[in-house]
Amino acid sequence: MNDTDKESNEMQVAFDDIQQVSPALASYTRDKLEGEVWNRDGLSKRDRSIVTLATVIARGQTEMLEAEVRLALNNGVTPAEVSEIITHLAFYTGWGNALAAVEPVRKVFAECGVEQDQLPAAKVDLLPLDEQAESQRAGFVEATYGNVSPGVVQYTAEPLFREIWLRPHLAPRDRSLVTVSALIASGQSEQVTFHLNRAMDYGLTQTEASEVLTQLAFYAGWPRVFSAMRVVKQVFEQRQEAN
Amino acid sequence: MNDTDKESNEMQVAFDDIQQVSPALASYTRDKLEGEVWNRDGLSKRDRSIVTLATVIARGQTEMLEAEVRLALNNGVTPAEVSEIITHLAFYTGWGNALAAVEPVRKVFAECGVEQDQLPAAKVDLLPLDEQAESQRAGFVEATYGNVSPGVVQYTAEPLFREIWLRPHLAPRDRSLVTVSALIASGQSEQVTFHLNRAMDYGLTQTEASEVLTQLAFYAGWPRVFSAMRVVKQVFEQRQEAN
Amino acid sequence: MNDTDKESNEMQVAFDDIQQVSPALASYTRDKLEGEVWNRDGLSKRDRSIVTLATVIARGQTEMLEAEVRLALNNGVTPAEVSEIITHLAFYTGWGNALAAVEPVRKVFAECGVEQDQLPAAKVDLLPLDEQAESQRAGFVEATYGNVSPGVVQYTAEPLFREIWLRPHLAPRDRSLVTVSALIASGQSEQVTFHLNRAMDYGLTQTEASEVLTQLAFYAGWPRVFSAMRVVKQVFEQRQEAN
Repeated sequence: MNDTDKESNEMQVAFDDIQQVSPALASYTRDKLEGEVWNRDGLSKRDRSIVTLATVIARGQTEMLEAEVRLALNNGVTPAEVSEIITHLAFYTGWGNALAAVEPVRKVFAECGVEQDQLPAAKVDLLPLDEQAESQRAGFVEATYGNVSPGVVQYTAEPLFREIWLRPHLAPRDRSLVTVSALIASGQSEQVTFHLNRAMDYGLTQTEASEVLTQLAFYAGWPRVFSAMRVVKQVFEQRQEAN
Repeated sequence: MNDTDKESNEMQVAFDDIQQVSPALASYTRDKLEGEVWNRDGLSKRDRSIVTLATVIARGQTEMLEAEVRLALNNGVTPAEVSEIITHLAFYTGWGNALAAVEPVRKVFAECGVEQDQLPAAKVDLLPLDEQAESQRAGFVEATYGNVSPGVVQYTAEPLFREIWLRPHLAPRDRSLVTVSALIASGQSEQVTFHLNRAMDYGLTQTEASEVLTQLAFYAGWPRVFSAMRVVKQVFEQRQEAN
Repeated sequence: MNDTDKESNEMQVAFDDIQQVSPALASYTRDKLEGEVWNRDGLSKRDRSIVTLATVIARGQTEMLEAEVRLALNNGVTPAEVSEIITHLAFYTGWGNALAAVEPVRKVFAECGVEQDQLPAAKVDLLPLDEQAESQRAGFVEATYGNVSPGVVQYTAEPLFREIWLRPHLAPRDRSLVTVSALIASGQSEQVTFHLNRAMDYGLTQTEASEVLTQLAFYAGWPRVFSAMRVVKQVFEQRQEAN
């Protein structure tokens, strides 16, 4: 397989096609993004794939998704984790984005021989619930918004925090990483604080979080990332003061 | 027609296909979203379809639109109302989203035998204009932004408030409901106050507005709805104080 | 070629098709948007095409892009400028949007006989760097965010400000116009100040900036433009005070 074929397989748009529109974009894609950013220290390729998948699904960029899923599987994201990411993002980016992801992912799973029994079932044994933390969260949301939308309050508890967040086949660190990435990619940086703190409580290091922003600069664009930088800076500073 | 066919017709992605990617998503889609959320009290299926159509069009989710339009027609939204929703959203979510909706809707209208003469004409007898309210609105916008963009100020008066908002084939309550849904789905919650007040002036109840948020949590995603909750809470509180 | 064919060529959705969904939308598209807005004084058709291309790419509206690129070339945007716009927007709206633009643009370029040697190369002689301004910008970003994401800080300098912004085949005024349009279309109005000031330093007049907002009201939608109006007003006022 020569270099062009390899690029065609990794990139959703072939190098030669990009060149016919922008030789500069083709060059930056191959050399800067694929050749350099994906290989940076500080965040594994596997984690970069998680960030990129979340971004592409959050932004409804379904034509890119096929290639990004293939890359994710090559980078060590398991089919079970891909499955959980899509379910999670139905809640965090809207049902339409999750449903739009089904066809591209189904196609890649079929190509790679992924069978349904490799995927987490609808009902699984959940991780243990931190009753105190959930009680605090639910109490706050009920007190603040109980009169605004009982329906939203209800579904935020069940299934969101009492089932989705406790499904075991996507580690809590990774589930929070997916959420932070989707929030930044969707321009909802103000909601990042809670989820970035959880990601870091679950093991995402500050270096890794910094590199998540680098990955998102390219895939969500510079404006979304500069919106996020202020919030992320506050989280880092508060965590350092607490230590 | 067996259950799977029914689901295929109602859902834009067949249950079996979703299962091959995420058995959990398939289950939540069928049992929680379709089986429970759509059947909740407090907001009719017809109104839930209006909210969902507005969300899908606002987010450019054209692959979902066909199935949502079929469902809307089944739920009692008239073809004339679907037509008006698309025209309205050209202004409120950008021309591209309205034009992208044309093909899926044309296809469903053709399937259902909807003829062009069932649709509102380009020029229709308009609802009466509240001259005082419009004069107040136009005066504020001219004073605030007259030097910023005379073009925007002009088109906001004509055609937006002096024609679009007065087209009769989508009731003012419903037209405001479409606007509120599109604003929340697009992450422009700060602009919800004006339009939610109008929707409630035109007859949307607080219970119904609460259930709009429940519907949007699933179709626009949790982050968009939590951005909106604060604004909606203020509207409810101000309206209660005024009473 | 009769009027309907002309409309089919200019518009990405044929007048007759729109009529079958909304006679009103068909009429507003042909008479208000295409017939009136595009012909307004204050901003050339060429510049309106730049604004519209940036909006469509920023919003991932790839089905519209083919017709908008044809129109842009007819309106005097050069193939080299289209090429630079796409490269620029990879950074300012995320890589996925730029890559999604490749196929529609490649098709139009092929139709119009645009050869790759008409397009700017990957490596070109750059415009001179304003060392003092760049040193100030880089110093501020390093001081503010150096601990948050060294990767983002690095790539913001190189390639973004030290290469992309200095590529000559898209004039600085136009490059800033693209950026302002994409920011408003993406709902990132708070970041408009810096880039609108640069656009106006590079020659965009206040009248032209006002008309950019008029164009964006139709293509990005009224909510995005009303978010931007407040920021644009401040820029105009500050520039007037400074004079």
